[in-house]
Amino acid sequence: MKKSSFIEKGNPAPADYFLGDVNVNLLLKAEDYNTIMAIVSFDAGARTNWHTHTNGQILIVAEGVGYYQEKGKAIQVIKVGDVVQIPVNVEHWHGASHETAMRHFAIIPDSKTDKTEWLAPVTENEYNTEIINEQ
Amino acid sequence: MKKSSFIEKGNPAPADYFLGDVNVNLLLKAEDYNTIMAIVSFDAGARTNWHTHTNGQILIVAEGVGYYQEKGKAIQVIKVGDVVQIPVNVEHWHGASHETAMRHFAIIPDSKTDKTEWLAPVTENEYNTEIINEQ
Repeated sequence: MKKSSFIEKGNPAPADYFLGDVNVNLLLKAEDYNTIMAIVSFDAGARTNWHTHTNGQILIVAEGVGYYQEKGKAIQVIKVGDVVQIPVNVEHWHGASHETAMRHFAIIPDSKTDKTEWLAPVTENEYNTEIINEQ
Repeated sequence: MKKSSFIEKGNPAPADYFLGDVNVNLLLKAEDYNTIMAIVSFDAGARTNWHTHTNGQILIVAEGVGYYQEKGKAIQVIKVGDVVQIPVNVEHWHGASHETAMRHFAIIPDSKTDKTEWLAPVTENEYNTEIINEQ
């Protein structure tokens, strides 16, 4: 078996697709399984751009408190323990909350056929809109 | 999006395939994605039977200290932070260590075509053999 560690934060995420301090540790090689898995570490205030996945995505929140939003819906709070099931082709973003860092595993099923499309950055206005705090 | 929680331990694992106190919380429905994901909680001393997966499996150790062994090789210690990549069709087992409980996520890629074959229980002799402590 091969082993890696999700304790390590990995490398800076590409600034074209993320805003703020974000690190990505790719835990599986794309050629080894038909799934991609990474742990993504967001400093407070950091987030992805808006984006879609043709095969959906699953997030496992490993540390902290963050936000998740689907286009046209309110921001939802996500926190350690949450497993978030993102539907296929739904425009969304995720990231840390205003004051707390957040780390999540990101899992893409059927990664060999998935297409992730990166869209516009999440503006300050969007990031600061009303939040639904789902407990 | 749908949300579940990995804090919850779920239901007792089937005694035909596990030994000792093991709980399984299935985090995704099989029909929603082409991957299955669960969190499995092993009390100290508890473990799976020997088994194989035609599409391999990935473990993420979320809490505690456990063991992983492939047939014909020594037992390896796995601990919180480890991501274990199990090759296809390799006979193996995993579980908690002698004195410490362990929880891991278990992810099966291409779950719609995966076949998991459950084999013999891990005997006390096998469980008590020499351990390679990989740090």
